[in-house]
Amino acid sequence: MGTEVVKAVNAAEDLELVAMVDSGEWLFDLANTGAQVVVDFTRPDVVMDNIRFCIDHNIHCVVGTTGFDEARLATVAEWLEAKPGVGVVIAPNFGIGAILLMRFAQEAARFFPSTEIVELHHPNKVDAPSGTAVRTARLVAEARRAAGLPPSPDATTDSLPGARGADVDGVAVHAVRLSGLVAHQEVLMGAPGETLTLRHDSYDRASFMPGVLLAVREIARRPGLTVGIESLLGL
Amino acid sequence: MGTEVVKAVNAAEDLELVAMVDSGEWLFDLANTGAQVVVDFTRPDVVMDNIRFCIDHNIHCVVGTTGFDEARLATVAEWLEAKPGVGVVIAPNFGIGAILLMRFAQEAARFFPSTEIVELHHPNKVDAPSGTAVRTARLVAEARRAAGLPPSPDATTDSLPGARGADVDGVAVHAVRLSGLVAHQEVLMGAPGETLTLRHDSYDRASFMPGVLLAVREIARRPGLTVGIESLLGL
Amino acid sequence: MGTEVVKAVNAAEDLELVAMVDSGEWLFDLANTGAQVVVDFTRPDVVMDNIRFCIDHNIHCVVGTTGFDEARLATVAEWLEAKPGVGVVIAPNFGIGAILLMRFAQEAARFFPSTEIVELHHPNKVDAPSGTAVRTARLVAEARRAAGLPPSPDATTDSLPGARGADVDGVAVHAVRLSGLVAHQEVLMGAPGETLTLRHDSYDRASFMPGVLLAVREIARRPGLTVGIESLLGL
Amino acid sequence: MGTEVVKAVNAAEDLELVAMVDSGEWLFDLANTGAQVVVDFTRPDVVMDNIRFCIDHNIHCVVGTTGFDEARLATVAEWLEAKPGVGVVIAPNFGIGAILLMRFAQEAARFFPSTEIVELHHPNKVDAPSGTAVRTARLVAEARRAAGLPPSPDATTDSLPGARGADVDGVAVHAVRLSGLVAHQEVLMGAPGETLTLRHDSYDRASFMPGVLLAVREIARRPGLTVGIESLLGL
Repeated sequence: MGTEVVKAVNAAEDLELVAMVDSGEWLFDLANTGAQVVVDFTRPDVVMDNIRFCIDHNIHCVVGTTGFDEARLATVAEWLEAKPGVGVVIAPNFGIGAILLMRFAQEAARFFPSTEIVELHHPNKVDAPSGTAVRTARLVAEARRAAGLPPSPDATTDSLPGARGADVDGVAVHAVRLSGLVAHQEVLMGAPGETLTLRHDSYDRASFMPGVLLAVREIARRPGLTVGIESLLGL
Repeated sequence: MGTEVVKAVNAAEDLELVAMVDSGEWLFDLANTGAQVVVDFTRPDVVMDNIRFCIDHNIHCVVGTTGFDEARLATVAEWLEAKPGVGVVIAPNFGIGAILLMRFAQEAARFFPSTEIVELHHPNKVDAPSGTAVRTARLVAEARRAAGLPPSPDATTDSLPGARGADVDGVAVHAVRLSGLVAHQEVLMGAPGETLTLRHDSYDRASFMPGVLLAVREIARRPGLTVGIESLLGL
Repeated sequence: MGTEVVKAVNAAEDLELVAMVDSGEWLFDLANTGAQVVVDFTRPDVVMDNIRFCIDHNIHCVVGTTGFDEARLATVAEWLEAKPGVGVVIAPNFGIGAILLMRFAQEAARFFPSTEIVELHHPNKVDAPSGTAVRTARLVAEARRAAGLPPSPDATTDSLPGARGADVDGVAVHAVRLSGLVAHQEVLMGAPGETLTLRHDSYDRASFMPGVLLAVREIARRPGLTVGIESLLGL
Repeated sequence: MGTEVVKAVNAAEDLELVAMVDSGEWLFDLANTGAQVVVDFTRPDVVMDNIRFCIDHNIHCVVGTTGFDEARLATVAEWLEAKPGVGVVIAPNFGIGAILLMRFAQEAARFFPSTEIVELHHPNKVDAPSGTAVRTARLVAEARRAAGLPPSPDATTDSLPGARGADVDGVAVHAVRLSGLVAHQEVLMGAPGETLTLRHDSYDRASFMPGVLLAVREIARRPGLTVGIESLLGL
């Protein structure tokens, strides 16, 4: 991901790359390069130190590293209190398409008696369903509950084990693993006489870069902690 | 459509059917049935008389008849001024899925360099592209302009006539006509490394009924003229 | 189905409808109508009597009734020995699209390391996966075995129950149940860098009629027992 | 493509890479490496010399270079007459998925009143429709003619220019160009009540390698000129 970020920043006319820090190198020199924003795609075991360093040196931080729970987010928020001008954006997903898909699924769910999710990935993926599919299912389930919808209709009485997918909070999620695929997700919503299908296809990590650059550009105007890039997208 | 509405109203526990008026019959008796709401799926040449009659008799009106231009809408609004308690909903489309599709396309368009539309219908359709596809393309084009997007990238220099579809306000629209199909629409949006596809499949006129019933239920709380059901959907 | 057949025969210029027999009525009079072919979509408990009657009276028989096992087929074949000029076609599926899908899946399977099946139906269906999906999976599995393919690659180690679908003879099959849908099936095949997807959408029982009419037209040229319409299609 | 072939051959246990020849380098030394098969992905202006060289030196040739017309094929066939043990495979497409798609479209076309093609590519493509889509349309048109099918039904009377796609031999072909896409093709076939859709997605040139390796393995058993890899696939 670091390489992709470097390429994307170099290709952007309004941004300048002043430093790259690889695994095993020191962040220390960053402070002297005049860096205004650090983009961190590292590992859960080093990311907190990196964020702390940036905040201390008045550098904004855009973070795509995984592993943030409530406790870690609270710690970062606390650190930022002492530096009211500094911004940190922490996002589990910088893919704008994936974020839109989740948002639309959440908005549409209350209008349809049925919603199911099919996610399709390359066969080297170790988890099933994908984290994004589980998150999407939870958002859909929450929207259905809020609208007072009953469970999706399903007359199945005679089923092979697994045929009807995984049950995530009442939403059926099916995981396809297929040689040749990259990362794909479909949300299928149905009402009598019609269906609405939302599909996201991700072919390349390049797809995360517009979201990263958006965060880099917006962060100076958004001091404090921002979780997710939804608010930056104006959604 | 009238038959579908009768079935839908009969199936709804909170609604009661008090009268049906077929082509060639008089609206006159309606006033004596205690009708609170009239649903009008008639023809452009009679719909204005029907609406006027309802307004005069303090009956709310849900109208799916086609052929409303600005002048007609203005006339209805003027009539309603004298009856502040009466509501009229006039909608070109009561299909919730189709409305959501248009809304989502409009919201997402600014994030993607490319948008194209493929609509697919039964081969008895006389217009190409469909009215819904043209409306969707216009909404997408407007969103792209508002966001300052350049034209969709397209290096085509060697093309057969028609291969790249119809140009609707800068958005390419392709119309497939195929035996077996009913009414389907796909909006394809692409950015480097990812695509987002929104698809609506309409199999049956039953799909318009949830929108009609929603309007019937909501109209008493919405006096005056309402165009489209978007606001009733809370979108 | 009977009604559909009547409509289809009436619409065909080269065929003439000479009699309709409803449940509870006698077949007896058929012999006097000059019927050359009987189409039987009845029930497992009466179909054998019907076939026997037709064979005895030298009437060809096209049968779409379910419930034929090896024993029943053998009985019909035995009856036909005494009447070398009479033909009986018994088919579990007259849908040409569905038959082509199965055939193509079977032919293509050996070229792809991965095959999975997603079938999607209305929510009133009681069995999951569908009979057609199970049959397709078995045909694919057989083709894979014949080609010596190893199991589809799948690195999943961390899975919710059901996420990876039902295992039919080593082929993962996923069953979606969604309001608005009719009957749909996708076979997804993947190899490094590419996927091939075969999809069949069935919207209406009208889709079975071309297969029925084909059998009606061909049967006089095919005495004896024919199981399935594949051979009539020239596949 | 050369790089992909090198990777694929290295990864194959039953094949050995003995030489690579880049643009500007001499073929001459090949004869001393003991090469049994040459894979040629070069340019139309040098490929004929390469093939002649290989034939003269009793080396089999698998050729993916473009630009072969009837005259060139005839020339190669003539050269091969003098060397009955040498094989040359010349194929416009080594993608097994694409070849299967064309084959299945051709086989299925006669059963469906309607066929249309939608191809979808990245926006840097200069030709529309793609060569594969045009070839597929021609094969479909030929199959329809052979079966005596009338033109696809189409009631369109009111159309924007281009909406109904390009007309290739009576088959409508639509070309979508979208940022994020790679190379995709759908053949849609419809009959009353059902549709059959064949879709091929190509994400990566790696997808051509199984076809290339197949040709490399089979060529020793197939002396003479083989055009296309269909016969090697046993189709």
